[in-house]
Amino acid sequence: MTIRALVWNENVHETTQPAIREIYPDGIHGAIAQGLGELLGDEVSVRTATLADPEHGLAEEALAATDVLLWWGHVAHEDVSDEAVARVQRHVLGGMGLIVLHSGHFAKVFTRLLGATCSLAWRNDGERELVWTTAPGHPIAEGVEHPIVIDRQEMYGEHFDIPNPDDQVFISSFEGGEVFRSGVTFTRGRGRIFYFSPGDQEYPVYFHPQVRRVLANAVRWAAPVSAERRAPEVSNPARREWV
Amino acid sequence: MTIRALVWNENVHETTQPAIREIYPDGIHGAIAQGLGELLGDEVSVRTATLADPEHGLAEEALAATDVLLWWGHVAHEDVSDEAVARVQRHVLGGMGLIVLHSGHFAKVFTRLLGATCSLAWRNDGERELVWTTAPGHPIAEGVEHPIVIDRQEMYGEHFDIPNPDDQVFISSFEGGEVFRSGVTFTRGRGRIFYFSPGDQEYPVYFHPQVRRVLANAVRWAAPVSAERRAPEVSNPARREWV
Amino acid sequence: MTIRALVWNENVHETTQPAIREIYPDGIHGAIAQGLGELLGDEVSVRTATLADPEHGLAEEALAATDVLLWWGHVAHEDVSDEAVARVQRHVLGGMGLIVLHSGHFAKVFTRLLGATCSLAWRNDGERELVWTTAPGHPIAEGVEHPIVIDRQEMYGEHFDIPNPDDQVFISSFEGGEVFRSGVTFTRGRGRIFYFSPGDQEYPVYFHPQVRRVLANAVRWAAPVSAERRAPEVSNPARREWV
Amino acid sequence: MTIRALVWNENVHETTQPAIREIYPDGIHGAIAQGLGELLGDEVSVRTATLADPEHGLAEEALAATDVLLWWGHVAHEDVSDEAVARVQRHVLGGMGLIVLHSGHFAKVFTRLLGATCSLAWRNDGERELVWTTAPGHPIAEGVEHPIVIDRQEMYGEHFDIPNPDDQVFISSFEGGEVFRSGVTFTRGRGRIFYFSPGDQEYPVYFHPQVRRVLANAVRWAAPVSAERRAPEVSNPARREWV
Repeated sequence: MTIRALVWNENVHETTQPAIREIYPDGIHGAIAQGLGELLGDEVSVRTATLADPEHGLAEEALAATDVLLWWGHVAHEDVSDEAVARVQRHVLGGMGLIVLHSGHFAKVFTRLLGATCSLAWRNDGERELVWTTAPGHPIAEGVEHPIVIDRQEMYGEHFDIPNPDDQVFISSFEGGEVFRSGVTFTRGRGRIFYFSPGDQEYPVYFHPQVRRVLANAVRWAAPVSAERRAPEVSNPARREWV
Repeated sequence: MTIRALVWNENVHETTQPAIREIYPDGIHGAIAQGLGELLGDEVSVRTATLADPEHGLAEEALAATDVLLWWGHVAHEDVSDEAVARVQRHVLGGMGLIVLHSGHFAKVFTRLLGATCSLAWRNDGERELVWTTAPGHPIAEGVEHPIVIDRQEMYGEHFDIPNPDDQVFISSFEGGEVFRSGVTFTRGRGRIFYFSPGDQEYPVYFHPQVRRVLANAVRWAAPVSAERRAPEVSNPARREWV
Repeated sequence: MTIRALVWNENVHETTQPAIREIYPDGIHGAIAQGLGELLGDEVSVRTATLADPEHGLAEEALAATDVLLWWGHVAHEDVSDEAVARVQRHVLGGMGLIVLHSGHFAKVFTRLLGATCSLAWRNDGERELVWTTAPGHPIAEGVEHPIVIDRQEMYGEHFDIPNPDDQVFISSFEGGEVFRSGVTFTRGRGRIFYFSPGDQEYPVYFHPQVRRVLANAVRWAAPVSAERRAPEVSNPARREWV
Repeated sequence: MTIRALVWNENVHETTQPAIREIYPDGIHGAIAQGLGELLGDEVSVRTATLADPEHGLAEEALAATDVLLWWGHVAHEDVSDEAVARVQRHVLGGMGLIVLHSGHFAKVFTRLLGATCSLAWRNDGERELVWTTAPGHPIAEGVEHPIVIDRQEMYGEHFDIPNPDDQVFISSFEGGEVFRSGVTFTRGRGRIFYFSPGDQEYPVYFHPQVRRVLANAVRWAAPVSAERRAPEVSNPARREWV
């Protein structure tokens, strides 16, 4: 069955800064969508949506037609309406997969699902990032080089304030010596969540073949098991005779 | 060092329903506070606060003077102000321990820290609850009978929609056959969280010696390691020479 | 790609006790194999092996040709040779899935991979078991009734001495009031492990459609991601220039 | 109550290589014991034992009188008798704390308790190690600098083949770019286990004030909750009337 992926991007840097537009002429969402199509082919159908779209492209029907949502945001987290955030959270709890990227650690959809500050250390100095696999049997790490070498990147460092993840898949180091839990998974309700930190607007990270491999693997992994979209809810069952 | 515990209770049933007042003449908060004092003596100083207090008794200074906050609520979750909830969340992230009791699974302070629905199955039919220890080496289970037998209780059953807990300490069964993860721990920021489901306004559960033992153990366990109260925050360190 | 499942059974009760043979005329392995074939069809190729086979049917080539090994044992754990156990452990670390059933909690392959006693409480009194799903979004719980009702079963109860599992999928209750973490997952090396407690030689549990559904789901879930079978090993890399 | 710590060291490098003896004139065990005494004072009573002692200093009575065992080994893992290893494992399952250091990742006591290969990447090139805290509210991280800077060290790198830890406390980076989960906790039976990788015979790591702080914190954390030493065991309870 085809996985329906929706790549969401605030798309602000690309439309306001020519230097960024040069790196991502089709937007970060365009680059990510292209990578998914390239690696997953018929396995996936990819749509994109941005902040400027009506209801940010996150209307009820759009989410109902999405198996896995990828999220990139940075400067406009606060411009995402609380209604859209609540819808996304409800769909994740009901089974939609969510892949949060890079500066999306501060996106409302992420901090509300995790309940922590999701704060971290950062420094934009074009440092080399090495992404090491800590779970070689994990589906998201399948076929991924150890380490992934990213020539120039923004540094994200510990302490990364997240709850204990379900699976610890990747840990990065940076030229300046910092480390970061760069690939971690969570479960909320029936939904699977993957956070992956490599990726920044100033570096062409989403064209990196290994980063694309990780995202393609993650889309497969986060796809819901069941076709039904239903968040857990309260029930008040009568007492039963079991036999 | 004395652990400063604050027992918070919405205190609505007790003040509006004589039958409940009879079970808990000093309020649920009073019964819990009494149990902590009895078991922990000088180790703890216990205060109480209720919804009706100014700022619900959860003003900045009150929280700053609290090492472990115990929370009981049921019918008035929505009456707790968002400001108070935000303060509690910030203090937990900064290191304050939090013990959430019974119907507090739907308290805003809990669902916001966990990011899930925290929904469950329930039935109020005065059933026998057995609380089994699944982590006998855990500090919260120290000296606790296996199982705790509670003669009459409201049933709480799976599926309990919580994130994967850090530690799975107790699992309950009920006369009707349901099971429930009745004692689980979480970490958020620097703070430790324990959820414990036994306890209801209609049954004198907070007078049960074994339940009191669990709560006393939990207060010790949730007390912050450090005297400093500071939630994790973003930093932007310069690159350093390390040697 | 077809999943190659191998159902291993000590096959002692069935060959020495006519009453058990009546319940499982083709052996417990036969009943399980039949269920997998029925539910997974072409997705799976199923073989069986027993203690009495040369090298217990667990020779190097047999394991190399196995994606997921299912294990049932009870009275003959000590008769499994240490060489066979070491081979199984190595294959699991290298990526082979392992599903351990019921009294297999004391199998050498399980206790060595877990490092704990794997002890529990038990009572054979033909009690009703209810198997409740605690992770409704988990692939192993897909399409499974909540709860599974098993009319008569041996009781397995807490404390079950296992390490903290990766995923907590099912919890059972028994007529006598006991509870048990009846479905739990672990990772060792590149291999995925699922323990599932329902199933006993004296009750026809492996003919139960819901138990069969769980086992079929688990075979899919435990199948290795990669075709390569290689346990993690020490390396001594030279220092590299990364860019 | 005084915590009874036992520092175990194979003590082979120090007695056979003068250059190592110069770094650790009282042995690695002597340096560690001195650090614990310095930081914990009356809170702890520290003994030491080595491979050459009768029964390696790990006789039944020695372990029965130990709350927390610290373990350093490297070239002589195979010389530790299986009987001693079985005793240590049994005491850990019964509640004794265990702190495994550096090359102890390949000690039989560790691999048997974890069930994995515990393999890793290594390179002895005198590289700078930075030890970053990933769990700032954890008792083992209390008062520890972020990062700990160790000027020269052997590199230990991922993939470190361990089961998913309970708590992820420290992650290290090395000059050559590798990362390592250098501080992780596990539970087995009633016992708490902490693995901490900094520390090597060729570098004076166990004199580093921050490393000493970590070990002192870990001794406190790993001390058993209960005075009783009893591994979990099978029980066969009769059916009870609960109320």
